[in-house]
Amino acid sequence: MSTPTPKLIYPAPFPGRGEHIRLLLEESGTTYTEGTIEEFQALKSVDSVGDKRNTPLFAPPFLQYGDLTINQTPNILLFLAQKFNLAGDPSDPHTVCRLNGLVLTALDGFSDEIHGCHHPLGGNFYYEDMKAESLARSKDYVKNRLPLFLGYFQRVLKGEASGEGPWLHAGMFTYADLTLFSCLSGTRHQFPKAFQRAEESGKYDLVFKLYKAVHNRPRIKAYLESERRRKYGNGIYRHYPELDVDPEV
Amino acid sequence: MSTPTPKLIYPAPFPGRGEHIRLLLEESGTTYTEGTIEEFQALKSVDSVGDKRNTPLFAPPFLQYGDLTINQTPNILLFLAQKFNLAGDPSDPHTVCRLNGLVLTALDGFSDEIHGCHHPLGGNFYYEDMKAESLARSKDYVKNRLPLFLGYFQRVLKGEASGEGPWLHAGMFTYADLTLFSCLSGTRHQFPKAFQRAEESGKYDLVFKLYKAVHNRPRIKAYLESERRRKYGNGIYRHYPELDVDPEV
Repeated sequence: MSTPTPKLIYPAPFPGRGEHIRLLLEESGTTYTEGTIEEFQALKSVDSVGDKRNTPLFAPPFLQYGDLTINQTPNILLFLAQKFNLAGDPSDPHTVCRLNGLVLTALDGFSDEIHGCHHPLGGNFYYEDMKAESLARSKDYVKNRLPLFLGYFQRVLKGEASGEGPWLHAGMFTYADLTLFSCLSGTRHQFPKAFQRAEESGKYDLVFKLYKAVHNRPRIKAYLESERRRKYGNGIYRHYPELDVDPEV
Repeated sequence: MSTPTPKLIYPAPFPGRGEHIRLLLEESGTTYTEGTIEEFQALKSVDSVGDKRNTPLFAPPFLQYGDLTINQTPNILLFLAQKFNLAGDPSDPHTVCRLNGLVLTALDGFSDEIHGCHHPLGGNFYYEDMKAESLARSKDYVKNRLPLFLGYFQRVLKGEASGEGPWLHAGMFTYADLTLFSCLSGTRHQFPKAFQRAEESGKYDLVFKLYKAVHNRPRIKAYLESERRRKYGNGIYRHYPELDVDPEV
């Protein structure tokens, strides 16, 4: 049997949630393809009932791998990381859950809550119609939530279970490191002032060390400098100057 | 080696996120224990750096199982469902990801978004200080998001991949069914008017059939009628009469 080619279906002009998956595919060095808008629309359609093996899917990113079609960012990451040897020993349920826990927490703190900062009333409202609420939430995020999540990952890296070297789990590079990097990269785009303050504080030195270590991995570096890397825009991570709160002011 | 006894650490007076896990443990028929407030505080502490094998954890619910200590609701569910034979064949990565995708979507639509309806500006604000924003978001949820998520699970149940009978995946009862039930139970508590309208509309008959089928499973029924079942209160699922929007009005 030939090995399927993974297809990521997230045809947005910005990195968005698809980027966490794209970075994993790039790091793995595998060949992958990207789905079209038509494929995206077919999977996203409220008329879809899936196929013989796959249930319909709710929201992108979508992944096709042979006869498997799945969604949910942490779910796709779990699948691909095990497939491409970025998840330690996938036959050990304890390893699976320790890594999955880290990934889910990175996505909560540096993706879902970040999106909430410009869409506190939900995705059906225009940002322009909830600017005051967005500012209130962004202030709270930058002053309280960001330090809490950065402090959490600093403790993970300090703790014995992270092992030697710059990584989160057992001294080995895994998709949890990649996901944290990807999330922090977006967070920096949305809140550059707070990100810089956090870095300068020295309180999260191990987190920023990990960030740089992932950034400098040869395949990641090459990808980030390539034309394949999309520019941030109207996705999850948005830079509105009026929300770019300086936590020290 | 003796089998460890699972310990759920979520000492809240309301069902909350811990309830999804408690229902799985109850359905499995296994013996489990519940952690104390002191154990909860030690794991939640911002001074914790974990232990030799486990990283520190961010937020409850927490699960201890032998020398494993993990967090994140969908992560704990994944682990326990595989352990207690509620996840089909856990050695098949495709089955793992199909079920995990359904569980993550149920939690997004009927737990995270539900919490956002009374805490649109985040958990650090008092509900009383964001009543107008909560009402705007609740109206949108009840009119747009709730039908979208109910319609999604109706399509899953209609689709071929769900197989015969009332369940979501391949004709077998799994933890995805339990989680959907658990989420819907909380949603009904928060939005009884919208829930009743949805049921009466007949559009989501397969979803409500699943809801009743899980409710009537002997161990679930016995648990729900027992004193172990906590009453809804100030947790994820809250009934504020002023947010209980009737979508038809």
